[in-house]
Amino acid sequence: MKFSVTVTLKKDVLDPQGKVIKNTLNDMGIKNLNNLRQGKYFEIEVNETNLTLAEKTVNEMCKKLLVNLIIEDYKINKI
Amino acid sequence: MKFSVTVTLKKDVLDPQGKVIKNTLNDMGIKNLNNLRQGKYFEIEVNETNLTLAEKTVNEMCKKLLVNLIIEDYKINKI
Repeated sequence: MKFSVTVTLKKDVLDPQGKVIKNTLNDMGIKNLNNLRQGKYFEIEVNETNLTLAEKTVNEMCKKLLVNLIIEDYKINKI
Repeated sequence: MKFSVTVTLKKDVLDPQGKVIKNTLNDMGIKNLNNLRQGKYFEIEVNETNLTLAEKTVNEMCKKLLVNLIIEDYKINKI
């Protein structure tokens, strides 16, 4: 069973890397860019046929390693 | 108008970073993890009310800066 996990910085957390990318794109001539924030993305395949258990495993991975819950939010989707 | 851009390594491109994460999760006791690949994620807000034009702008950003088309694929979604 395959899942995607999207990790984004919480709304109020500054994103210096995203800001640099935004400035670079502006400098390259792209004018109508309002905002850009960078996040992380994972594609995870688990050996588990039960959806609930599989989601539980992915959730555990997120909490244990992939996500810094203090500054980041995450979203799990089945793909 | 707000879009998400997901950038993933092409299927045949090795992902050493993903492999390290996978091994770490295994070492932490998560056993039924089959595969993990890491990608990039961007949330982009453009000042443009026309969907086609907005998508064109985001696509241009991807091709010019955000994505290495030789080794990466990308997907744009409206959010």
